[in-house]
Amino acid sequence: MRDPVEEVLIKGRAAREAANLLRAASTAAKNQALLAMADALEAQQKRILEANAQDIQRAERSGASKAFVDRLRLTPERIQGMAAGLRQIAALEDPVGKIEGMWRRPNGMWVGRMRVPIGVIAMIYEARPNVTVDAAGLCVKAGNAAILRGGSEAVHSNRMLVQLLSDALATSGLPASAVQTLETTDHAAVIELARHPEYIDLVIPRGSEALIRAVVENARVPVLKHFKGVCHVYVDREADQEKALRIVLNAKVQRPSVCNAMETLLVDQAIAQEFLHRVIPELEAAGVEVRGCPRTRAVTPHVKEATEDDWSAEYLDLVLAVRVVDGLEEAIAHIQRYSTGLADAIVTENYGRAMRFVYAVDSAAVLVNASTRLVDGGEFGLGAEIGISTDRLHARGPMGLEELTTKKFVVLGSGQVRE
Amino acid sequence: MRDPVEEVLIKGRAAREAANLLRAASTAAKNQALLAMADALEAQQKRILEANAQDIQRAERSGASKAFVDRLRLTPERIQGMAAGLRQIAALEDPVGKIEGMWRRPNGMWVGRMRVPIGVIAMIYEARPNVTVDAAGLCVKAGNAAILRGGSEAVHSNRMLVQLLSDALATSGLPASAVQTLETTDHAAVIELARHPEYIDLVIPRGSEALIRAVVENARVPVLKHFKGVCHVYVDREADQEKALRIVLNAKVQRPSVCNAMETLLVDQAIAQEFLHRVIPELEAAGVEVRGCPRTRAVTPHVKEATEDDWSAEYLDLVLAVRVVDGLEEAIAHIQRYSTGLADAIVTENYGRAMRFVYAVDSAAVLVNASTRLVDGGEFGLGAEIGISTDRLHARGPMGLEELTTKKFVVLGSGQVRE
Repeated sequence: MRDPVEEVLIKGRAAREAANLLRAASTAAKNQALLAMADALEAQQKRILEANAQDIQRAERSGASKAFVDRLRLTPERIQGMAAGLRQIAALEDPVGKIEGMWRRPNGMWVGRMRVPIGVIAMIYEARPNVTVDAAGLCVKAGNAAILRGGSEAVHSNRMLVQLLSDALATSGLPASAVQTLETTDHAAVIELARHPEYIDLVIPRGSEALIRAVVENARVPVLKHFKGVCHVYVDREADQEKALRIVLNAKVQRPSVCNAMETLLVDQAIAQEFLHRVIPELEAAGVEVRGCPRTRAVTPHVKEATEDDWSAEYLDLVLAVRVVDGLEEAIAHIQRYSTGLADAIVTENYGRAMRFVYAVDSAAVLVNASTRLVDGGEFGLGAEIGISTDRLHARGPMGLEELTTKKFVVLGSGQVRE
Repeated sequence: MRDPVEEVLIKGRAAREAANLLRAASTAAKNQALLAMADALEAQQKRILEANAQDIQRAERSGASKAFVDRLRLTPERIQGMAAGLRQIAALEDPVGKIEGMWRRPNGMWVGRMRVPIGVIAMIYEARPNVTVDAAGLCVKAGNAAILRGGSEAVHSNRMLVQLLSDALATSGLPASAVQTLETTDHAAVIELARHPEYIDLVIPRGSEALIRAVVENARVPVLKHFKGVCHVYVDREADQEKALRIVLNAKVQRPSVCNAMETLLVDQAIAQEFLHRVIPELEAAGVEVRGCPRTRAVTPHVKEATEDDWSAEYLDLVLAVRVVDGLEEAIAHIQRYSTGLADAIVTENYGRAMRFVYAVDSAAVLVNASTRLVDGGEFGLGAEIGISTDRLHARGPMGLEELTTKKFVVLGSGQVRE
C-alpha cells in the first residue's frame, strides 16, 4: 500500500464502518476492550521493545539529539505507564449517552441534548509513542474510530502498538479497524486525511506549524489545531511575592519544553525593583537565560536585551523574556498582542484587578494565582487529555473525553406539531 | 471599493477592532443598542421600503418567480416584525460571562468554563432581508462583530438595513463596524471571507450547495455549514395513527419550502395497508404529489413510482417520497443511508422501539411523536436561531445565542503550582 491517497481512502472507509459499530457499543464493551488493550501491551512488551529498538537505532544513526531519542525510547516502565493509562481511561465515566438536563416546552414536548461520538477522528502528532496509546484509548472510550499518524521517527513503535491495540479490540468483539495507523510517512497522506469528509469527521493536528498550516490550507474536514503556546504570567503590584516567585519558577522551570510553560514574564513597574531582584537570581540559579526590556535591564543590567522577536517567541527551553509594564492595562494590552491564547496568568491579591484580568484576557485558560503549567486535562479534572486546543470552536484548551463527543437534540413528544 | 479582496481585508480589519470592543461591552449597552436598532428600522421605514422597491423592480424585470419576489418583498408589517425580533433578542438572557458551574480540584484551585464571544462571524445567506436583521441582532447580543453577505437580489435592501443598524450602534456608543455588509456581489469575495483567520473566526454559509462547497474547499477559517435537510418520519406498527396522520401532514404541508420539512415517509409494512389508505388521500387533498416504492404502489397503485433519486431528494415543495419498510431496523438503515442528518422522527407508542430509534439515529435532532417542523431554535426554547447547523462540531441543529459564543477556562487559585 504505497499510494498515500489509496491508503487514506481504504483506511478511511474501514474507519467509517468501525465508527458506525462503535457508536452503538455499550460502555461495558468499550471498557472491556480498553482493559484488553492494556493487557496486550504488557503481555507483548518484548515485541514492543524490539520494534522501538529499530526506531531508536535509526534515530541515533541519523544523529538525533539525546533529548529526542529519550522522548522516543520505550522502557518496561513506560509500557506499564501506557497500560495504566488505558486502565484509567476505562475507569472514567463514559460521556456517550449523557443528557445534561431536558426541558419541557409549553406544548408539552421535552427537549434535551445527548452526547454522541463524533465519528472518525484523524490525529497527527509527533515522536512520543505514548501519544498513540493515549489517543487510541480516549477515542475508543468516546465511541470514535481513530486514524493515527505519528511521527515518522516512531513508525516501527507505532505500527506495533496499533497492531496490538487493534488485535485486542477484535478479541473483545469490537471492530479491529477502530484504531488504525497510516503506513506512509508522506506528507501528502497527512493532508489527504483532511480532504475526505465522507470518511473523516475531525482532524487534530499537533506538530510543526508548517504541517498544521498545510493541513488547514487543504482541509475540507473540520480541523482542531494544537498550535504553539506563548504563555504569560503578570505579577501585579499587589501580588503576594512569595506566591509570585513560586508560580513564576514553576511556570518556567518545571517542564520548559511544553506548550503551557511560561515564555514571557510581565512585572508591574511599581514592584519591579524589588521583585526582579528576587526572581531573576532564582531563575538564573535554575539555569534560565533572562532577556529583558530596557526597564528590566535598568534594574538588573547584566541580563541580555530582549528584541521584538522575543515577545512572540515560543522558546520551549530555559529562556525567558521579561518586561516591566506600567500596570494591569499595559499587561493586558501586551497579552492581547503577543499571546497565542493558550494560557495566561495574573498574580495578585487585589480582587478588582483579578476580576478585570479574568474578563479582559481572551485565552483558552485564564488563571489567577496559579501556574500556567496547571492548564492540563488531568490537572483540570477532565480525567485525561488528548491535547490542548488553541482553536476557538468546539473545544478550547485541554480536550478531554467530553470534547471527543458531539451532541444531538432529542425530542420526546406526544403528537406535537408546528402551529 | 470594487476589488473584492480589498473590501474583505478592509472590512475584516474593522470587524476585528469592533469585536475587541464589543467583547467587553456590558449587557445593558448591547441591549440598548438592540432597542435603538429596532427604533431605527421603524423610524426609517420609508427609506427601507424605497430601497426594497429597487430590489423588487429588478427581480420582477429579470422574471423572478412570484414566490421569490414575495420572499424578497418588505412591507410595513414585515419591518415591524424585524423590529419586534430585535426587541425579543434584547430581552433574551446574555450568554456572555455565564459560568455553568466551577469545580474544586484537590489542590484547592477552582476551575470553570466561562462563555465568551466567538469574535468576528461572517454569514452568507440568501434572498430574505429579514435574515440580515436577525443575524445582526443575534451576533451583537452575543458580543460578536458580523460581516453579512446576503443574496445579490437583496443588495439595496440589505445595504439600507445594515446602514441603519450600524448608525444605531454608533449612536448607542458601540462600534458602527460591528455590523457590516459586503458590497461586492462577486463570489470571489464570499470565498475570500473564509481565508482570513486574522480577521474572521467563523463563517456560516447558508445557501446553494455549490456555494457552500466552494467556501469549504477554500476555507482557512472554521465553517459551520447549513446544508440541506432530507428529513424522515417513520410510522411504526404500534403508532397511534391519529398522531401519525397529524405529524405526517404537518411535517410535509405546514411549510414545505424549509429544511426541516419531511421529504420521505417510511411506513412499517405491518400497518402499510391501513395507514397508507388513510394518509395518502389526506396528503393528496393538501396538494401533495406522492411518489411510492413498489410496496406503496401495491397499496395505492395510482401514485407515481419513486426512483432511487427520490430517496435523496430535498424537494422543498409539495412532493413526498413514501417507502414501506419491514420494520424499525430497515427504517433506521434507510435513514442512515439517505438522511442528511438534520431531523428524523419516529411515531410509535412502543417504548423500546422509541428508545432504540433515539439511540440509533445519528441526526442533529431525533424526535419521538413530534413533527420535524418543530426542529427550530424558537420551538426548542433557545430564544431565537441564526440557522440550523448540519455540521457535527461546535453547534449541531438549531443555533441560538449560546452557539454564537465559545468558552474559556477560568482558574481561581491561591498560589498553586504543578508538582
